[in-house]
Amino acid sequence: MTDTALKPGSTLGIVGGGQLGRMIALAAANYGLKVHVYAPDRDSPAFDVAARTTCAAYDDAEALAGFAQSVDAVTYEFENIPRATADILARHAPLHPNAEALSTTQDRLTEKEFINRLGIPTAPFQAVDTPDDLDRAIGALGLPSVLKTRRFGYDGKGQRILRERAEGDRNALFAEFGGAPLILEGFVPFEREVSVVAARGRDGSFAAFDLCENEHRDHILALTRVPAPGLTPETARAALDIAKRIADALDYVGVLAVEMFLVRENGVERLVVNEIAPRVHNSGHWTIEGALTSQFAQHVRAVSGWPLGDSARVGGLPVEMRNLIGAQADDWSALLAEPGAHLHLYGKGEARPGRKMGHVTRLGRVPEA
Amino acid sequence: MTDTALKPGSTLGIVGGGQLGRMIALAAANYGLKVHVYAPDRDSPAFDVAARTTCAAYDDAEALAGFAQSVDAVTYEFENIPRATADILARHAPLHPNAEALSTTQDRLTEKEFINRLGIPTAPFQAVDTPDDLDRAIGALGLPSVLKTRRFGYDGKGQRILRERAEGDRNALFAEFGGAPLILEGFVPFEREVSVVAARGRDGSFAAFDLCENEHRDHILALTRVPAPGLTPETARAALDIAKRIADALDYVGVLAVEMFLVRENGVERLVVNEIAPRVHNSGHWTIEGALTSQFAQHVRAVSGWPLGDSARVGGLPVEMRNLIGAQADDWSALLAEPGAHLHLYGKGEARPGRKMGHVTRLGRVPEA
Repeated sequence: MTDTALKPGSTLGIVGGGQLGRMIALAAANYGLKVHVYAPDRDSPAFDVAARTTCAAYDDAEALAGFAQSVDAVTYEFENIPRATADILARHAPLHPNAEALSTTQDRLTEKEFINRLGIPTAPFQAVDTPDDLDRAIGALGLPSVLKTRRFGYDGKGQRILRERAEGDRNALFAEFGGAPLILEGFVPFEREVSVVAARGRDGSFAAFDLCENEHRDHILALTRVPAPGLTPETARAALDIAKRIADALDYVGVLAVEMFLVRENGVERLVVNEIAPRVHNSGHWTIEGALTSQFAQHVRAVSGWPLGDSARVGGLPVEMRNLIGAQADDWSALLAEPGAHLHLYGKGEARPGRKMGHVTRLGRVPEA
Repeated sequence: MTDTALKPGSTLGIVGGGQLGRMIALAAANYGLKVHVYAPDRDSPAFDVAARTTCAAYDDAEALAGFAQSVDAVTYEFENIPRATADILARHAPLHPNAEALSTTQDRLTEKEFINRLGIPTAPFQAVDTPDDLDRAIGALGLPSVLKTRRFGYDGKGQRILRERAEGDRNALFAEFGGAPLILEGFVPFEREVSVVAARGRDGSFAAFDLCENEHRDHILALTRVPAPGLTPETARAALDIAKRIADALDYVGVLAVEMFLVRENGVERLVVNEIAPRVHNSGHWTIEGALTSQFAQHVRAVSGWPLGDSARVGGLPVEMRNLIGAQADDWSALLAEPGAHLHLYGKGEARPGRKMGHVTRLGRVPEA
């Protein structure tokens, strides 16, 4: 197994078959790569655009090894794959981002400890392994605060805001989370949520897209605006620098996203890292039309050992990306008819509530301040 | 079989598995469509990005019927499929562009007669079915002139320039063309080659991309510049109007390209139609980054019964597209490293001489006058 740059005609393995894997696959195809997608669900949207597919569980060691042996490099579209899975893959093919970056960032506790070790602020936090820990953690952090599973959370799943001291309910709370290790995070009085989507190449090169502002509804990303309005240029630069320090420290290869809170206290802006996504990210979908290189093309470049592309915005225009969640995708026909609206649909069958069905990107609108 | 607008999740059938089919498939995937590609060659580049594939000959009636029954609409990526094939497809699924448009434009004689009937000039031409016809045709058109097969020619294949009266060689010439029906085309003293790439929707709506100037080397497109430099705005408008009249007369649905010669006589610009391509076209590849809607997205919109997208150039910038022919694709690594160069590779195995392996698009260069 050697980790030389991929040549056109090589096969890129993608673990995970959702819309992120699908869009990575489309970008890889554009560069003349073949794609082999590994996912457990027969209805995986990425299967429809892959040269080859493996439908197997993430703990199927034999299938994982066969998959990795069939490709020239492996990447993944989401962080909730077990470390053991990553280790099997890495034994048979170059794995980017590396398994250590994956395991550091897929656990909210190790992630925050890692970030703090770099001198970068996060929300205050306490590990909560027992009901007793919860009392102590609430005592330390106060209320409101947020109780989360350490691993496998996304889109608000696996978390709960605690507003009042839940006397006597500690055991019920633990049962609710299925006994998984938890973390309590202190409340951050933030003004905005922003994210940096950036790429680091195998040679250590780094290219960040412009800072994004994100709005969530029901814990799901609803809207991304670029550039993030209402911030000083210094804060925007500081955000990009944080992402670079994190990527360097992880020896990261590929696209990552760093979600941050913007806190304003006495007129001073301050950034607090919320979490790291070791993958292409929903807040980077605007780059497909809005940047000279999309986050998906950039990710393919990075994991293939190729030079990173130009991450500047097309024509310097502001960009707005809206997710189409559940029934919002029923508007596809009107969106197709709207001049300048770039519609993307992910080929998912059923528009269940909360399911990301597609997104729409508009260039040139001046973001609201 | 009904011809209603496709819904996301529907399956689009594409006949032909080359790079054009591949890029249509990528555009269809972006809109949440599934793609079923039909092609005779196991190594078809479009197979690698299709949800489903059928590998069978273009005259395999059973395979064609099964394919058409499995999809919600059928389109094709090239015009050299037999009329009988189109008729089988159209019996089982809506076929766009229609079979009549295909058969009219795949034969250089019926194509030119059709264009002339619209009052649009072509090169002068004569049908050549026998060696005797050739003498008569040369007598009528003079020399030099170009002898071509009526059907199945592309990239300069199936044609030969006659510069001197080929006394006694008439029979050898016929043998060279395999006895296929021929056409002799008179010489057009053109200054530039231009093309209009445009789309017509099922509702008769029409949207043209800006006029392209094309440079060929060895009969293969080498370079497209947009907007075509050095033409009056009136000529550019006239070119678009010609394309619209042709599309309307064919009751065309989808993207088509009309190649034209620009003739300048005594300072007056005049357009002469060279040929119609009833499909997406190499001279439209620049639209992927250079236009608000790519020709591939536009084609998918048209054949799906959706509204056409905005065909304006991104930021009004000039665009240059260069084909990577044969070994030119060996420069992929340097092109990836060039800021602002958009590289596309088609996933073809062997870089044979004359084979289109990819293309590269650059925005914002001022075209040479």
